[in-house]
Amino acid sequence: MRSRPLKVALLGCGVVGSEVARIMTTHADDLAARIGAPVELAGVAVRRPDKVRGGVPAELITTDATALVKRGDIDVVVEVIGGIEPARSLITTAFEHGASVVSANKALLAQDGATLYAAADQHGQDLYYEAAVAGAIPLIRPLRESLAGDKINRVMGIVNGTTNFILDKMDTSGAGYSEALDEATALGYAEADPTADVEGFDAAAKAAILAGIAFHTRVRLDDVYREGMTEVTAADFASAKQMGCTIKLLAICERAADGGSVTARVHPAMIPLSHPLASVREAYNAVFVEAEAAGRLMFYGPGAGGSPTASAVLGDLVAVCRNRLNEATGPGESAYTRLPVSPMGEVVTRYHISLDVADKPGVLAQVATVFAEHGVSIDTVRQQGRQDGDGEASLVVVTHRAPDAALSGTVEALRKLDTVRGVASIMRVEGE
Amino acid sequence: MRSRPLKVALLGCGVVGSEVARIMTTHADDLAARIGAPVELAGVAVRRPDKVRGGVPAELITTDATALVKRGDIDVVVEVIGGIEPARSLITTAFEHGASVVSANKALLAQDGATLYAAADQHGQDLYYEAAVAGAIPLIRPLRESLAGDKINRVMGIVNGTTNFILDKMDTSGAGYSEALDEATALGYAEADPTADVEGFDAAAKAAILAGIAFHTRVRLDDVYREGMTEVTAADFASAKQMGCTIKLLAICERAADGGSVTARVHPAMIPLSHPLASVREAYNAVFVEAEAAGRLMFYGPGAGGSPTASAVLGDLVAVCRNRLNEATGPGESAYTRLPVSPMGEVVTRYHISLDVADKPGVLAQVATVFAEHGVSIDTVRQQGRQDGDGEASLVVVTHRAPDAALSGTVEALRKLDTVRGVASIMRVEGE
Repeated sequence: MRSRPLKVALLGCGVVGSEVARIMTTHADDLAARIGAPVELAGVAVRRPDKVRGGVPAELITTDATALVKRGDIDVVVEVIGGIEPARSLITTAFEHGASVVSANKALLAQDGATLYAAADQHGQDLYYEAAVAGAIPLIRPLRESLAGDKINRVMGIVNGTTNFILDKMDTSGAGYSEALDEATALGYAEADPTADVEGFDAAAKAAILAGIAFHTRVRLDDVYREGMTEVTAADFASAKQMGCTIKLLAICERAADGGSVTARVHPAMIPLSHPLASVREAYNAVFVEAEAAGRLMFYGPGAGGSPTASAVLGDLVAVCRNRLNEATGPGESAYTRLPVSPMGEVVTRYHISLDVADKPGVLAQVATVFAEHGVSIDTVRQQGRQDGDGEASLVVVTHRAPDAALSGTVEALRKLDTVRGVASIMRVEGE
Repeated sequence: MRSRPLKVALLGCGVVGSEVARIMTTHADDLAARIGAPVELAGVAVRRPDKVRGGVPAELITTDATALVKRGDIDVVVEVIGGIEPARSLITTAFEHGASVVSANKALLAQDGATLYAAADQHGQDLYYEAAVAGAIPLIRPLRESLAGDKINRVMGIVNGTTNFILDKMDTSGAGYSEALDEATALGYAEADPTADVEGFDAAAKAAILAGIAFHTRVRLDDVYREGMTEVTAADFASAKQMGCTIKLLAICERAADGGSVTARVHPAMIPLSHPLASVREAYNAVFVEAEAAGRLMFYGPGAGGSPTASAVLGDLVAVCRNRLNEATGPGESAYTRLPVSPMGEVVTRYHISLDVADKPGVLAQVATVFAEHGVSIDTVRQQGRQDGDGEASLVVVTHRAPDAALSGTVEALRKLDTVRGVASIMRVEGE
């Protein structure tokens, strides 16, 4: 074993960073044995140095992150600050000064991964980011490496623990969205401002990263269709149950049937209870991967939290350190297919639509005609009189597979019908 | 991209080998782009050259595997022959002649992995074997690399598709073992001689490999406790259902509570229906990993078959080729902990025991006394008169956690009681 240690700079010492620092200390011997050289925490950059950091020696703490990454003797920079700036500048500066980077920064990778990869490549450094998607679940490495000899056609997963916790509560307790969100907040599963989670921004960033890796092309956050889950109601869950389904917020990355393009999207969807993703409970994450030769694979585990995320960071740290001792680098960006990302209108899937309609003869025929005119084939219809004397009924239509644009056109036309009082909900049906 | 191709020698061209050859041809451009250089099939060694091999040019086929691996211009040898010899000699010869090796050979790795690793290390070559455990499911790489910064405490999985298919049939249809085996054979899930699967030899080899990697120590096939599933009955499934469980053949690798030793075992066990492994159906495989920081992870997918296994082989091939272009090698053997493997008697788990007893007062007290004398604490007892007039009843005892040796002692003593007519079944209870 080499006796001279590899030096690690840690940017950020919050929930994840402090856990990384702790494990680097408590498991130093194991890490050294697995890497083939000791690793040493050489500096920790934080915003508020007065905040207590369990176990990190005071002399390692600095507020000058830029100076730390420029030191020149740093082997690996671990970036767990999050956000776009200053993270991006710090990472590119690290590459310029001869360090490799391990990052957990999904937002930055989804928005500007290509820039980071290019900088890593230019300076002959590694960029690893297992922790950016689905916490501790090994996913980036299996996709980049284990499945490197296969053709991935679909990646579909639950990649946000907060929203899965909320939807699971709604499903099991019959609670409404607000009530379930309150419980998630009280238990620490949701942040004070839950927008990034419940509106699907977090999941969309992960979808961009997964789609890019899976299809060997560039997919940016802006390419991902995004719909949050704040409008999912207890009534939707009741409808889902009637279909033998539950509702999950899914990130779905697909290769088009003709292979010439890809799509990436995040939205709530009904999935059959028999699908492995349906039984993913609480704040757990799981990602389903369909590959040509491998078939259907699933990866399951805790998608967030200090320790799980630190596990992913440290796995990358070991890999990057090994590469360094080998004077080699791991896989870089693989975007050679240059497949375009198609808009949501071209996605083909099934739909579950609940309509409030006038309770009189001929309405079903009118509605069915509108679907037919837009080329959307109906699988089943369920009609229910409301029996509250207001002359309204509800009509639940489940379609066969159709392009999203055709469905949108259908709904627009339905809204114009006098007999359609309102479109109560539209939900995609996946996983069949 | 480098224009000079990397040369691959394929040893074996059966179900897996022919699929590897096919994908190397049909996906040559993708593989080249991902590796950074073309890969070329330079030779295919088979036993019976007259057998038709779809798509493999006749001039590549040879019966002289030794000459092929000795050619000197081979970059990577892909070994999909299986068995101990000639596979072992061919692999070590390949290393001696400057080739790296990708193998799917679980038996050889479980029996003599250390020899192979040493030979690879001596000659500066790679040894990769993702396909040896659980087919296409990325498992070796996640354990060796993704979790390299974590401490794995437990690996528990369904790693044999044939037996899972049989047990699933027994569970869902109420069929007996023989009937379910016949169906598995008819559908091609079981071989004409199913011994290696149903007696747990195949799973035991995989347990040895997984335990060694997970705990960074050497575990050989002989170290693995093994019990097949041929004695599981429809009555066992009925008992399991009463407990809210099902029965799976599990491979379980554990670190002892004190951290000073490990165990590895394969046997049928009851697991709660709420455990993710309980819902693994048909011939699918799934492996649960518990790590200190990462928490509970699960990896799921097809555990066998030509295409899935080929996917794993090709993923390794891409990695080994990339390493070669980098003039580096991937992770080698990691056995630095040198943890001893404890015998089965030291394994601590729960038990479900069905006894046929005399249907008269005082029997339960006698039985309970025997458990207490051996330090095995009883969780629940269920007593049922058989009402067939023969004066027998059955007694179902579920214990708290106890060492396997204590349970064995208890059962031995129970057999000596006059009032105990027989021990109908003993099954471990896992996953709680």
